[in-house]
Amino acid sequence: TINGDRLWDSLMEMAKIGPGIAGGNNRQTLTDADAEGRALFQTWCEDAGCTMGLDQMGNMFARRDGTDPDALPVYVGSHLDTQPTGGKYDGVLGVLGALEIIRSLNDLNIKTKHPIVVTNWTNEEGTRFAPAMLSSGVFAGVHTQDWAYDRTDADGKAFGSELERIGWKGDEEVGARKMHAFFELHIEQGPILEAEKTDIGVVTHGQGLSWTQVTITGKEAHTGSTPMPMRKNAGLGMARVLERVDAIAWSHKPHAVGAAGQINVYPNSRNVIPGKAVFTVDFRSPELEVIEDMERRLREEATEICEQMGLSVEFEKVGGFDPVEFDAGCVTAVRNAADRLGYSHMNLISGAGHDACWINQVAPTAMVMCPCVDGLSHNEAEEISKDWAKAGADVLFHAVVETAEI
Amino acid sequence: TINGDRLWDSLMEMAKIGPGIAGGNNRQTLTDADAEGRALFQTWCEDAGCTMGLDQMGNMFARRDGTDPDALPVYVGSHLDTQPTGGKYDGVLGVLGALEIIRSLNDLNIKTKHPIVVTNWTNEEGTRFAPAMLSSGVFAGVHTQDWAYDRTDADGKAFGSELERIGWKGDEEVGARKMHAFFELHIEQGPILEAEKTDIGVVTHGQGLSWTQVTITGKEAHTGSTPMPMRKNAGLGMARVLERVDAIAWSHKPHAVGAAGQINVYPNSRNVIPGKAVFTVDFRSPELEVIEDMERRLREEATEICEQMGLSVEFEKVGGFDPVEFDAGCVTAVRNAADRLGYSHMNLISGAGHDACWINQVAPTAMVMCPCVDGLSHNEAEEISKDWAKAGADVLFHAVVETAEI
Ligand SMILES: NC(=O)NCCC(=O)O
Ligand SMILES: NC(=O)NCCC(=O)O
Repeated sequence: TINGDRLWDSLMEMAKIGPGIAGGNNRQTLTDADAEGRALFQTWCEDAGCTMGLDQMGNMFARRDGTDPDALPVYVGSHLDTQPTGGKYDGVLGVLGALEIIRSLNDLNIKTKHPIVVTNWTNEEGTRFAPAMLSSGVFAGVHTQDWAYDRTDADGKAFGSELERIGWKGDEEVGARKMHAFFELHIEQGPILEAEKTDIGVVTHGQGLSWTQVTITGKEAHTGSTPMPMRKNAGLGMARVLERVDAIAWSHKPHAVGAAGQINVYPNSRNVIPGKAVFTVDFRSPELEVIEDMERRLREEATEICEQMGLSVEFEKVGGFDPVEFDAGCVTAVRNAADRLGYSHMNLISGAGHDACWINQVAPTAMVMCPCVDGLSHNEAEEISKDWAKAGADVLFHAVVETAEI
Repeated sequence: TINGDRLWDSLMEMAKIGPGIAGGNNRQTLTDADAEGRALFQTWCEDAGCTMGLDQMGNMFARRDGTDPDALPVYVGSHLDTQPTGGKYDGVLGVLGALEIIRSLNDLNIKTKHPIVVTNWTNEEGTRFAPAMLSSGVFAGVHTQDWAYDRTDADGKAFGSELERIGWKGDEEVGARKMHAFFELHIEQGPILEAEKTDIGVVTHGQGLSWTQVTITGKEAHTGSTPMPMRKNAGLGMARVLERVDAIAWSHKPHAVGAAGQINVYPNSRNVIPGKAVFTVDFRSPELEVIEDMERRLREEATEICEQMGLSVEFEKVGGFDPVEFDAGCVTAVRNAADRLGYSHMNLISGAGHDACWINQVAPTAMVMCPCVDGLSHNEAEEISKDWAKAGADVLFHAVVETAEI
């Protein structure tokens, strides 16, 4: 098994970079804090005897050689970027848990047949630059690199220029690497494992996602002197659509999920009726038809609401992926590892999107999950126990080493 | 009568400072653009033979002496600051229309018994620093100066330090000046005069206003992996409250008005359920009891909505004034002036708040209004005709000169 204390110390060390305001982290992708986190990770990898590769999307690949020069590497990792008010474990556990595999193999003086490559994927969170899992998406051929470079943040800065600015744009062609398999450890970010008092989630599927950016246009006007019947209040139109988003998600049995996380009105002045409202609706379900139904109903119902109010409305799909079924062999390797180590386990459908969801398209892939307190994530108060982290990393270790063969 | 072309030229000249993005202006209070506008105004006043006074709130007072050294001045003016996406006339017409009175008196070589003081009040709009009409409010003794200095903008900058930064903090004690009367010309910002094809609004009353800042607190959580029953979505709570704000305003007969212009959710990330929503509700009516009823119902209904959703809610009153009845003598002076000049006129209740509403508490006050196209204001597309501007300034001229006595 791995060294739980060392893993925990590294998690706490990384959490010092890009501290949040309430005990968590703000280490958003392609910020100076991201660059600092990457540098620390690189130092740790090199100290563990790995050589670092860097591709043109800033994806980092720390390689420990195998004994068979012809064997494809087993990749293992996640992401170091965080939400603006994010936790210390979302993504980070998966990267540092993977590094802990290398350190443990070094301790045990074990050589694997296949090389093992610890990976940090750029911009998993998708907060600063939509969509989420951008760089694993380019790696898997889902997006073109040029399109990814053109994504802009709220200040209009482009992904491509920010990647250059922080100094982490590599030369390597994205997606050129071939993988024997890919494994990702992640906190559940939901309440099931904790409620079921189960150590390990064997992730068999991932739910699909759809992000629709809705722009409602009305007319800026004075809040005092504009009579109610003359108003075209884009903020009120948005309120009515948000109510429908909630109802649409609940209407599916078993329920799907839906919410708007990003909301902006313009000009955002106390005495101006909003002339424009822009918000992103996030719908998810394990079933593709359900996602498509929710998207369709959002468009229909929002259009109807806006027509009635004299508002215009536009929709743009700014992110999404279909539900995922992970590789049966890799899933079995995870389950066997949990069994062998004596950890309780259950099958899970991932509620969140992960880099593994895209990599699954180009390599046999599976995920390991561990519980998090109250199922809370995307919150600075995100918490896990050292034991949970160790159990997850132990299972990851065994699944990876079994796949990489001794 | 005044010189309509000269007035129009000055309006267009001032509009070059702090241009907007769609033909209007962004010359928000205490910005560099505000400082530039003030400097131009000062130059024009001095060219017209006035001496400039400046008080500790940055209120500007350009004085043309009268013939009687003991006579109190007649004050006349409005504000040069604009909304972030504001028009070229809201406020500016009232200041430059007042300056045009001085220029016309100079042309005609007329001396008045009472001095005339052209006034620019600081931060009328209240967008950058709530509440609106902040500095006329301090002048009238409604707010203390220290409290006003402590108001902060969205970046946390304080009114007091920004006033110093732009170099327009004077020495003069605020409110020390005594007024014989105060007159303010303003565009209607509503649709009535245009619909009634009437040149002049004789403003007899102003509606009252209440600004309540509502803060709803839920729990930041992942939009994908948090089951619907576990969510505490502050954005959804806000949506439900916004629907009630609209219903409450409509429920009054004749209807009052209500809307939320400023809306922010946190952390404002596409895949985070909003943990906090902060928005300002603007309610208005000519009747105090109606405003109080709307405020009370907002608090009750928002509390009930939030309790049902497991959210907490707080309310803070961030601005407001009671309905106003203007001075009968000054109102008559305005009506007589319109009659004398042959302009069609009607009584109006101002839908917006104005500096005149506060000054009315310390001096006999009245307002003149002219139409604006489609009743549109707080919009860069705000428009008036040169004839409307001239008619308004003519009536202002006659009312002021009659009150200042020749
Ligand atoms: N794991 C995670 O939070 N990924 C971000 C993409 C998503 O919103 O699911
Ligand atoms: N006239 C004007 O727009 N004043 C701003 C204060 C208000 O919102 O009424």
